[in-house]
Amino acid sequence: MTATPVLSASLTAIAGLRCKECGTEYAAQATHVCEMCFGPLEVKYDYAKIKRNVSREKIQSGPHSIWRYKDFLPVESDHPIDVGTGMTPLIKANRLAQHLGLKNLYIKNDAVNMPTLSFKDRVVSVALTRARELGFSTVSCASTGNLANSTAAIAAHAGLDCCVFIPADLEAGKVLGTLIYNPTLMAVNGNYDQVNRLCSEVANTHGWGFVNINLRPYYSEGSKTLAYEVAEQLDWQLPDHVVAPLASGSLFTKIYKGFREFVEVGLVEDKAVRFSGAQAAGCNPIATAFKQGRDFITPVKPDTVAKSLAIGNPADGVYALELARKTNGNIEDVTDAEIIDAMKLLAETEGIFTETAGGTTIATLKKLVEAGKISPDETTVVYITGNGLKTQEAVHGKIGAPLTIEPQLESFEQALKQAQPLDQLGKQPVLA
Amino acid sequence: MTATPVLSASLTAIAGLRCKECGTEYAAQATHVCEMCFGPLEVKYDYAKIKRNVSREKIQSGPHSIWRYKDFLPVESDHPIDVGTGMTPLIKANRLAQHLGLKNLYIKNDAVNMPTLSFKDRVVSVALTRARELGFSTVSCASTGNLANSTAAIAAHAGLDCCVFIPADLEAGKVLGTLIYNPTLMAVNGNYDQVNRLCSEVANTHGWGFVNINLRPYYSEGSKTLAYEVAEQLDWQLPDHVVAPLASGSLFTKIYKGFREFVEVGLVEDKAVRFSGAQAAGCNPIATAFKQGRDFITPVKPDTVAKSLAIGNPADGVYALELARKTNGNIEDVTDAEIIDAMKLLAETEGIFTETAGGTTIATLKKLVEAGKISPDETTVVYITGNGLKTQEAVHGKIGAPLTIEPQLESFEQALKQAQPLDQLGKQPVLA
Ligand SMILES: [Zn+2]
Ligand SMILES: [Zn+2]
Repeated sequence: MTATPVLSASLTAIAGLRCKECGTEYAAQATHVCEMCFGPLEVKYDYAKIKRNVSREKIQSGPHSIWRYKDFLPVESDHPIDVGTGMTPLIKANRLAQHLGLKNLYIKNDAVNMPTLSFKDRVVSVALTRARELGFSTVSCASTGNLANSTAAIAAHAGLDCCVFIPADLEAGKVLGTLIYNPTLMAVNGNYDQVNRLCSEVANTHGWGFVNINLRPYYSEGSKTLAYEVAEQLDWQLPDHVVAPLASGSLFTKIYKGFREFVEVGLVEDKAVRFSGAQAAGCNPIATAFKQGRDFITPVKPDTVAKSLAIGNPADGVYALELARKTNGNIEDVTDAEIIDAMKLLAETEGIFTETAGGTTIATLKKLVEAGKISPDETTVVYITGNGLKTQEAVHGKIGAPLTIEPQLESFEQALKQAQPLDQLGKQPVLA
Repeated sequence: MTATPVLSASLTAIAGLRCKECGTEYAAQATHVCEMCFGPLEVKYDYAKIKRNVSREKIQSGPHSIWRYKDFLPVESDHPIDVGTGMTPLIKANRLAQHLGLKNLYIKNDAVNMPTLSFKDRVVSVALTRARELGFSTVSCASTGNLANSTAAIAAHAGLDCCVFIPADLEAGKVLGTLIYNPTLMAVNGNYDQVNRLCSEVANTHGWGFVNINLRPYYSEGSKTLAYEVAEQLDWQLPDHVVAPLASGSLFTKIYKGFREFVEVGLVEDKAVRFSGAQAAGCNPIATAFKQGRDFITPVKPDTVAKSLAIGNPADGVYALELARKTNGNIEDVTDAEIIDAMKLLAETEGIFTETAGGTTIATLKKLVEAGKISPDETTVVYITGNGLKTQEAVHGKIGAPLTIEPQLESFEQALKQAQPLDQLGKQPVLA
């Protein structure tokens, strides 16, 4: 149950953990906070070693999952937990691009990530592989929903015991999509930030591996695969601009880290990539700081339909803020109504049904384009991070209804006359 | 709007359509019934030509989707509609295998197929590509739910107009998961067989491409990719035994066809593969005929929780029956309670949340193993065809509930004492 370091230097490029603030170094154990300055710990790699080991060819001949990038991930095992996670499609979004007036728009579609249909499967696959290496038999997490689904599912596959914590007011699909795997599920009367604080206490008193607390340095590295895959799928080039949702801010900063690593080891040419972040108006602490020119985050109490982004006190908010500024990007927030409209727009133009977080990202994309903050010629990649089947209540009553008919031809013909023209969107964009 | 044959012989191995019963040949247009004998039409290929064109290496260097097998599919375009469909994981199901007493069990997991999380994305990608080639601008289907999701989504991506027909009593997730793409949705007061009859009439009076009616010969070929992928993922070998769900019976027979084609062109060695089919007790016309030793199907009126399998008059039922018999397989049916238990078993052992159709297949697998009809040593592949987030009502109230706590450590500790042991399934299988 207790964590023991089992680093075998010959098998891995992990060189330990290092404080992001003061640089103090630690062994690669289950720890996440610097004892000197309370800064967050990050995995340190031997990039010279990675550079000697990797090549485009080696990656391409690897498994069709995040584990083709194993040389860049903080695990040692030759047999990581691989349930097909990652390598989701990068869709050239021509119809959405045309609607918005863009020319080179791509959707990285983690709404169909495996096994639980969100980008969290990436970070959990890495965290549970590392948890197993460190000797944990019980894994846990504080979650806004998607992480609960993913931790419960991948723990079930790996035969690890599992206890997950969620805010009690989550969407039904996320609760049921956790319970089905039969973990112990704690529904906390409070918001995510309260759940997270409780979990920090539990992590100190039980010998469990909390994927996003004591295993956070390993866990968060899984998001780098969102960068690697896009670079490989763009034929080993970096995009001009990325738009991604901001919850804790971690995903955003790790995409940047992933791009920089690929440049560092020579897999892609260097290039300036602009980073723009998306928040809901009902939980916009990072967007507010960005707009006000502050370099600190004032926590907020979330109230938004985008529950998976409802983190009022984002752990990596300051780093996300800094990244948007230094790359000449932006951080915007959008209303719940704009989020729902954007979910529909993405579905109608590209056939992708995303959850509210994805609606937030598409609505932000639209807002940035309309404000001239993304230029039509930029190769822009938008990260869609979760599936709409998990947040069905968000669009319930806000999309069309079926036409109910009898099983006779006349009944059909009558209904068809009353229906909207079949080609509504094709000819005149509904949300223009 | 009307179908015109645009066959360019130089680009394709399609040699036309041929009646499965009397062998009469037709041009590769939008037609599905023989004018001589009313038998179903099937695509005819020039296998000598395919054999000259294909190799393992060529397939492996193709796209990571069903289109890597384009040489075997009935389309001509160099740019088929590719939204990442196919190449779903083949999971070595060690924990489920151990639970059942098997040694070499694999799950082909189309619960995470792209874009709409069922195997229907395969057949629809092929059908809509062909529809576009034949000049259709409006596509349609008769659906038990998954097909409606897939047709609406892929039509949206491709910019085709879309009108889909479903039974009015479908699961909420399947209705909403169709409406989000903004097609015209006709909810018919009747069962699937009535919907299907109505659609046949509509297909005769409107110039639409019905994927599973006038485009059925092309559509159904998409299911062959479930065979190709398994063969490739098993390192270019065929399995000993497959277990798959039976609705119309088409998927079952096309998996067989796919294996035979791979043998025919020399991509895999020949081998006897046993085919076993799964039905729900509430809609078991094929299983009943199998058990009674009949060679004809008596239609039934469906009443089962497995709505996506609720076809009482299965178009390809006789061919499925014949296939199970000639390959020394079986056809079994299972109760609604067994279906729900099997959905939970798969989730708890493998981290895969399937819909009721997948529960039907796993329950059938279990029943066949317990009856000694699948031997422990056989390399067995089970086809999981859809995602559990679409049929949430089926398990509602039949899985555990969260433990609701306050955001304080004492509240958590108290709840934990009341919880089931965390390692319940790991140590003693819940459904044994
Ligand atoms: Zn420090
Ligand atoms: Zn005929």
